[in-house]
Amino acid sequence: MAGDGDSSPLPSSSSSSSSNNTTTTTTTTVTPSSKTDLNALFHRDLTLPDGTVTDVMTHFISRITTLFTDYMRETSSREDAKVVNYIAPKDLLAAFDMRITDEPESLGKIVEYCETTLQHGVRTSHPRFYNQLFARIDPVAMVGEWLTTMVNTSMYTYEVAPVFILMEAYMLERMREFIGWDVNVPGDGLFSPGGSISNMYAMQAARHYHFPQTKEHGLLAIGKIPVVFTSSHSHYSIKKGAALMGLGMRHVIAVDVDRRGKMIPADLDAKIQLAKDDGLAPFFVNATAGTTVVGAFDPFEEIAAVCKKHGVWMHVDAAWGGSALVSSKQRELLRGVELADSVTWNPHKMMGIPLQCSAILIRTSGLLSGCNATNAQYLFQKDKINTEYDTGDKAIQCGRKVDVFKLWLAWKAKGDKGYERQIDYAFANSRRLAELIRARPGFELVYEPECTNVCFWYVPPSLRHLDHTERREALHRVAPVIKAGMQYRGSMMIGYQPLDDFPNFFRMVFSNPAVTEEDIQFILDEIENLGHAL
Amino acid sequence: MAGDGDSSPLPSSSSSSSSNNTTTTTTTTVTPSSKTDLNALFHRDLTLPDGTVTDVMTHFISRITTLFTDYMRETSSREDAKVVNYIAPKDLLAAFDMRITDEPESLGKIVEYCETTLQHGVRTSHPRFYNQLFARIDPVAMVGEWLTTMVNTSMYTYEVAPVFILMEAYMLERMREFIGWDVNVPGDGLFSPGGSISNMYAMQAARHYHFPQTKEHGLLAIGKIPVVFTSSHSHYSIKKGAALMGLGMRHVIAVDVDRRGKMIPADLDAKIQLAKDDGLAPFFVNATAGTTVVGAFDPFEEIAAVCKKHGVWMHVDAAWGGSALVSSKQRELLRGVELADSVTWNPHKMMGIPLQCSAILIRTSGLLSGCNATNAQYLFQKDKINTEYDTGDKAIQCGRKVDVFKLWLAWKAKGDKGYERQIDYAFANSRRLAELIRARPGFELVYEPECTNVCFWYVPPSLRHLDHTERREALHRVAPVIKAGMQYRGSMMIGYQPLDDFPNFFRMVFSNPAVTEEDIQFILDEIENLGHAL
Repeated sequence: MAGDGDSSPLPSSSSSSSSNNTTTTTTTTVTPSSKTDLNALFHRDLTLPDGTVTDVMTHFISRITTLFTDYMRETSSREDAKVVNYIAPKDLLAAFDMRITDEPESLGKIVEYCETTLQHGVRTSHPRFYNQLFARIDPVAMVGEWLTTMVNTSMYTYEVAPVFILMEAYMLERMREFIGWDVNVPGDGLFSPGGSISNMYAMQAARHYHFPQTKEHGLLAIGKIPVVFTSSHSHYSIKKGAALMGLGMRHVIAVDVDRRGKMIPADLDAKIQLAKDDGLAPFFVNATAGTTVVGAFDPFEEIAAVCKKHGVWMHVDAAWGGSALVSSKQRELLRGVELADSVTWNPHKMMGIPLQCSAILIRTSGLLSGCNATNAQYLFQKDKINTEYDTGDKAIQCGRKVDVFKLWLAWKAKGDKGYERQIDYAFANSRRLAELIRARPGFELVYEPECTNVCFWYVPPSLRHLDHTERREALHRVAPVIKAGMQYRGSMMIGYQPLDDFPNFFRMVFSNPAVTEEDIQFILDEIENLGHAL
Repeated sequence: MAGDGDSSPLPSSSSSSSSNNTTTTTTTTVTPSSKTDLNALFHRDLTLPDGTVTDVMTHFISRITTLFTDYMRETSSREDAKVVNYIAPKDLLAAFDMRITDEPESLGKIVEYCETTLQHGVRTSHPRFYNQLFARIDPVAMVGEWLTTMVNTSMYTYEVAPVFILMEAYMLERMREFIGWDVNVPGDGLFSPGGSISNMYAMQAARHYHFPQTKEHGLLAIGKIPVVFTSSHSHYSIKKGAALMGLGMRHVIAVDVDRRGKMIPADLDAKIQLAKDDGLAPFFVNATAGTTVVGAFDPFEEIAAVCKKHGVWMHVDAAWGGSALVSSKQRELLRGVELADSVTWNPHKMMGIPLQCSAILIRTSGLLSGCNATNAQYLFQKDKINTEYDTGDKAIQCGRKVDVFKLWLAWKAKGDKGYERQIDYAFANSRRLAELIRARPGFELVYEPECTNVCFWYVPPSLRHLDHTERREALHRVAPVIKAGMQYRGSMMIGYQPLDDFPNFFRMVFSNPAVTEEDIQFILDEIENLGHAL
């Protein structure tokens, strides 16, 4: 029986592969030179039937990595590539042959599809992509993720992921140390598929701590309605978590924020007390380090005091702002974070690690397996060796992708000081933009920046003399038009949104270490250019 | 202000980078030849301060991809590489310098760390790795994931992921078609971080369908206890989901299985009726296509009839067995799957896609956003263009990694027929192994294979004449010893576990298309070799 699982239904147009051939000799005649070769070669030619890698594989991988390095080179340039070549959905569908049929396509076509995908995609590593809380990826982290992909293992057991299991434990401990927790007290944690899920782990750990009967008996066994508190500017994952976990979105109580977007501890205190008076069961407070829009840091020390007073779990969603802990200059923004019971921190944001890389960190050990252990015999046999290192019982997942290696590799390559400099540079850029905005007619800051978010309006000349209400309504329509203009031009990407009573404003985010003074000037020039005549 | 975010605290030992230099000219003098170069180069040398990619980057990437292709070549060979070079945790910690310090490490060291990581890792793409429900990754899918990593975008909006958003919609529709649902009826779905989370999405959609008040008001508003049914052999994610979602693990009711590990519909019917009589609220049945250990397919048509009778949502966890749908020969195993309301299907298992690649598929549209929408203004501005394509409101995540491209690319490269042949080959291998086991003294099948799982005992000669009870106890200790032996030798990896009253048995899984007749013979020889003297 030959391992012909990959052989094609078509007669092969190449002499390099034969399903009856089990030696590598005939494949070495392929000259890894022109693209034409790949047009006559297929998936089945990458290996022999028994899996042995052929020279076609080397040629294919080399062709692909050349394409990739070209893409990286173009993307890093301000002249050679737009941030996006905008294309409307119907045109994209027409331009791109998505359809899979019975028959295989040649490796040449596969390379072409990769090219087309790159061409129509958004270049998030471009120096003028500022649209999300992530931007340019770290190239060493990218290589780390490529390795992870090739190795393709899962984080449940030491048996199948020895290096990564120990590395995750080391990195989680290191991150807990940056938070300021006592490293001599065993803590808990995991890398999860993202900040929302990390926040849900925190809610789950807190619920298990306060109401351990929930795991077996369900929420109905609590006898009271558990409630959660979070600021009105916090991330929507707290509400999503409350919906998924059966708590109900209305049992997420919004705490007021001050003029800088920071949670007001007195309001938290009053609302917890009110909930208690109403017979509800407050068990979880989510504070935020770097809110999504404004970039505000909640006052953790005061919030911790309120949580302590009421006996409520304190979580800090530092998905965005957690990376400031790496800088001795910026970490003051997180003063008091060490008083939290749990912290979410996403290196895939400000640290430039490719998606996904998010950690849930818990001050004390045992809660994650407390919540999630099912002791499934088929996976976690206690008669196997090294099972004390297994993490599968701590996770809501079974198979869990390796997300730690890319972070570890990039951090090794930069050292703490390298990362500190990168974080400080992003903060400095945000202060520089704020300075320019203050100095430039037609631009107005919405908030003084605290994290690297800079929120501002551009007010076209025609709006500058309107009265308050008229101006507000007109201003709300400005950002969407400028944003669409950016996308059509492909010159840059910045997000906008309304918030509270503020009409649509731009949110500029700095996390790309390649941003220069010229880029910062360009942002304002381009917005003015697109919006001046509105 | 220069973009010096990446510059190092150390004076550079190379002339290739200067923090004041903004042109590429000085970097072209680096000769991309020897490893020594990289030992004198650092992360900061990969780009100029303004982000421009240098020749050091090209050299570094080329060095890394050479390492990767060497690894792939070794891994594909039965002679050049063991499945694992077993190392105990404390020795691994001693051999591997995990520690990150203030200072950066050279690119040469980074390459070395990659080498060490590969050396100590488990080669899941080796032709003799059979330990999990995934094995050898597809090389085209690997390249697709590398592209995804480099592009680094998130699946929430068309704005930042135009190609991938349309591609996900296309692939989900295609997978729904393979299930047999009417493609003219708009369906729902998402790629999620894994099968467990896909199953939780199904539970959440079913809960929302039956008790929509839960989203806002929580489980307490239902007034009854919702209960879930799943076979005693099903995946533990149903229990984990019940714990996370506040239902409680005890409200997951285990349905009995027959001698082949298939759910007994009459027992399901009786247990649903009993729950109703007890005043509970049955709302969700999980049937399985390819159980984790045995590989059984539940009888979907009969289960669908029971679900219809009781008005209960029917989900099929086809994380493992779903790939059989691609084969016209094997899809009979899933007869009736089209009667389900939702299906989980993990291409990262039998289809060889790198982790993570799991889809939750729902027959009708609207439920996922019904469950999860928070209409967060800061991300999903309705005054933006193309927002009707955005998927963010359907997910429990915010940032969501692109998991569709690798699957699409591999499927394009193979065509339906190529995948069909691969799946059929895995099934054929499992039948061949069962045949060999039946013919060979000392080996006994635990179950007749239905999916590609083959469950069997090896009974050493010393146990063959023991009475039933003695033999059972002795046999339970055999598999762990043989398994540890395999790991120490690194010759192959196969899982084992007990189940119900059966003592520890091996579970051989076929999904690697490179397995040959010789490998199948080797499995039995190696087990006998390791266990004969026990």
